[in-house]
Amino acid sequence: MILLRRLLGDVLRRQRQRQGRTLREVSAAARVSLGYLSEVERGQKEASSELLSSICGALDVPLSTVMREVSDELALAERPILDPLDDAVPAGGRLAVTKMVAAA
Amino acid sequence: MILLRRLLGDVLRRQRQRQGRTLREVSAAARVSLGYLSEVERGQKEASSELLSSICGALDVPLSTVMREVSDELALAERPILDPLDDAVPAGGRLAVTKMVAAA
Repeated sequence: MILLRRLLGDVLRRQRQRQGRTLREVSAAARVSLGYLSEVERGQKEASSELLSSICGALDVPLSTVMREVSDELALAERPILDPLDDAVPAGGRLAVTKMVAAA
Repeated sequence: MILLRRLLGDVLRRQRQRQGRTLREVSAAARVSLGYLSEVERGQKEASSELLSSICGALDVPLSTVMREVSDELALAERPILDPLDDAVPAGGRLAVTKMVAAA
């Protein structure tokens, strides 16, 4: 099962790292604890809507931009395996492709 | 503050209503309580990632489709008031436009 909080955490961490900022800096700006932000980034904790807004504010990234990135990644992860693979890839290989897509 | 759970609830309710299905039907299919689904649709409760997946599964709509709709609505709600309005709309009118955008 593809979990929203895991993709959301990936996107938030990438946004922070693109800006070269630390967990400490962003958590202070967002007024959330460092541990909470870290758990959100690792997909271990659901961010409440209020705290998600705070984190986006601290990153100076619109929530819509974050959610667009999340939906793009979800679409990639959810896309069906293309038909040609049915012929080209043996059973074990197809499973590997499925796993790669799910992990992307 | 624009809250993710409120827009998400709107999108989920619209998806259900487009299919002409009741809260009872979808909550049973998703194996969540009717009260929980109702609260999620009204933006009163954060849906966990697992239950959000279940609800999307019950609606037979990819999570990516739901999140794309959410991000589109967020982008509309977050867009800055266009410059021409500064000249064309008096102060009270501009506030009304801002509220309309926020409520959209």
